[in-house]
Amino acid sequence: MKINISVCGSDGDDSDLGSYALEVAKTVGRCIAKRGGVLVCGGRGGVMKAACKGAREENGITVGIMPQTKEEANEFVDIAIPTGIGHKRNFLVVSASDAVIAIGGRWGTLNEISFAMIFDKPLILIKGTGGCVDEIINGNLMQHVESTYHIADSAEEAADKAFELCRGL
Amino acid sequence: MKINISVCGSDGDDSDLGSYALEVAKTVGRCIAKRGGVLVCGGRGGVMKAACKGAREENGITVGIMPQTKEEANEFVDIAIPTGIGHKRNFLVVSASDAVIAIGGRWGTLNEISFAMIFDKPLILIKGTGGCVDEIINGNLMQHVESTYHIADSAEEAADKAFELCRGL
Amino acid sequence: MKINISVCGSDGDDSDLGSYALEVAKTVGRCIAKRGGVLVCGGRGGVMKAACKGAREENGITVGIMPQTKEEANEFVDIAIPTGIGHKRNFLVVSASDAVIAIGGRWGTLNEISFAMIFDKPLILIKGTGGCVDEIINGNLMQHVESTYHIADSAEEAADKAFELCRGL
Amino acid sequence: MKINISVCGSDGDDSDLGSYALEVAKTVGRCIAKRGGVLVCGGRGGVMKAACKGAREENGITVGIMPQTKEEANEFVDIAIPTGIGHKRNFLVVSASDAVIAIGGRWGTLNEISFAMIFDKPLILIKGTGGCVDEIINGNLMQHVESTYHIADSAEEAADKAFELCRGL
Repeated sequence: MKINISVCGSDGDDSDLGSYALEVAKTVGRCIAKRGGVLVCGGRGGVMKAACKGAREENGITVGIMPQTKEEANEFVDIAIPTGIGHKRNFLVVSASDAVIAIGGRWGTLNEISFAMIFDKPLILIKGTGGCVDEIINGNLMQHVESTYHIADSAEEAADKAFELCRGL
Repeated sequence: MKINISVCGSDGDDSDLGSYALEVAKTVGRCIAKRGGVLVCGGRGGVMKAACKGAREENGITVGIMPQTKEEANEFVDIAIPTGIGHKRNFLVVSASDAVIAIGGRWGTLNEISFAMIFDKPLILIKGTGGCVDEIINGNLMQHVESTYHIADSAEEAADKAFELCRGL
Repeated sequence: MKINISVCGSDGDDSDLGSYALEVAKTVGRCIAKRGGVLVCGGRGGVMKAACKGAREENGITVGIMPQTKEEANEFVDIAIPTGIGHKRNFLVVSASDAVIAIGGRWGTLNEISFAMIFDKPLILIKGTGGCVDEIINGNLMQHVESTYHIADSAEEAADKAFELCRGL
Repeated sequence: MKINISVCGSDGDDSDLGSYALEVAKTVGRCIAKRGGVLVCGGRGGVMKAACKGAREENGITVGIMPQTKEEANEFVDIAIPTGIGHKRNFLVVSASDAVIAIGGRWGTLNEISFAMIFDKPLILIKGTGGCVDEIINGNLMQHVESTYHIADSAEEAADKAFELCRGL
């Protein structure tokens, strides 16, 4: 059975996201594919599309857990899993994965991050990618609870950490 | 048809929660019942139990959306809705309600708060109740996105705001 | 905590359903309310609306687990629980209840009947109400598996059986 | 993007199932893989395992939508999607697929068949495989509703029909 790594982040178009976040997402996708992992994501645009593109470039398999239909999937999704339950599908992106990597993001990403913590899934936040990820890293949220998430400085470090944590399961 | 207001917060026992948070939760429950609303919550202990207790004191109806079984419900739940899907039931606490009031809380509450924002539900955070609620109020998260949530200084203000926003729907 | 009894059946308008099925549904609703139970259903028209009407006439509480929004609820639903997940909400109608009564019905009802069997919920089929209920009673489906469902000849018998089975839990 | 075909049937061990049903399941798996489709199933034993084995023999990709964890997957599942929601995951096996093939089966299969009808998914029942599939074919259920499902006499015919119906979407 293959190792599944999910990448979570905003589905906004390029102008909503820093180009750094998209570059990181693509590199994470490449790293997951190079290590033989399956890239799992919400199947939409933005960070998800960039990660799928990276995985495709390395001949990896990409899975998109879609809100409604197959048609919503970005062009780099190999296997689309339409759910018909909208944003309620977020839990599946997390439960389907052996580790979760978060990049930038807004409320949807925060929703997935909170599911990762609730489900005790290995979670890696990539520093400098903006959005709720940097707000968690820089802010107060991490001080409150016994934090079990990990902070990576780069895409490569995040992918390494994700696979290391999966194998430790 | 009745108005449903949900109360979200930690299910920890009293020692995990400030007594202020529990007092606020109970008063919120009383206020919802006095105004004829149905109190919806996750049906467990801590903030949920305190809110149910308050609603019961005013002869209100309490609904608990349970993770697994009816037996998990606190003693002040009138109508238990067992789901059998664990924490994945969080979305239902939010979707079932016309407005959401959050008190203190940890990752589960943050999960419900993020669903409220994703679903465009009226959301009221009560200041001074600790946990992720105060971290959102005091921290950076609210600066990032166009915030549509409301901050209340007291239980009464929160309940007033919740009913005001429901009626505006 | 209250006992919840669900009533499952077609949401078609009157012309799709025999008047007997609707009459039975209304009487079942009355019987549930008279015994102090909460009527749980999918909140729509047809059999669901008739059952809610009956329960309302006896001042019972009715809960509608809605496919999408509160606005879909029939006029006799007291507490609407919008789910936003469409027909995937069927499992909740079953998991929310201590016993399930099925009347007539088509694929949606068969879906709920199969969930009742999978969840080991007490299930009562009312004979003569048509649809998949009579097809199960008269057909081959009941011969195949070790059947744990019950067959009632009338609304009253169905309600009696439902409460008897709940109390035995 | 790949075409997804789901295979539904009992997870019982071999003694519960006729050897014909298992042989058919394996051949269906082979046919799906040979045509370049992804085999989607509930990931467990019995019919699901036989179908995955067949797909694996033809170097196809197999996806298992698991009730709870990855560990539940049969040895021929390539990509396991743990859901943590138990049998409530059945809807996903159907929503994830472009067409559904049902073989034998009991209440779980009937649950998936009813979801296929509710979601208007192309559905093919394979004759002679026993369980609820043959009961639907031979019984009354198909007379009641405007049937949109298809009956195949063999594994090959079922796979041909499934791909034909997908392409027509």
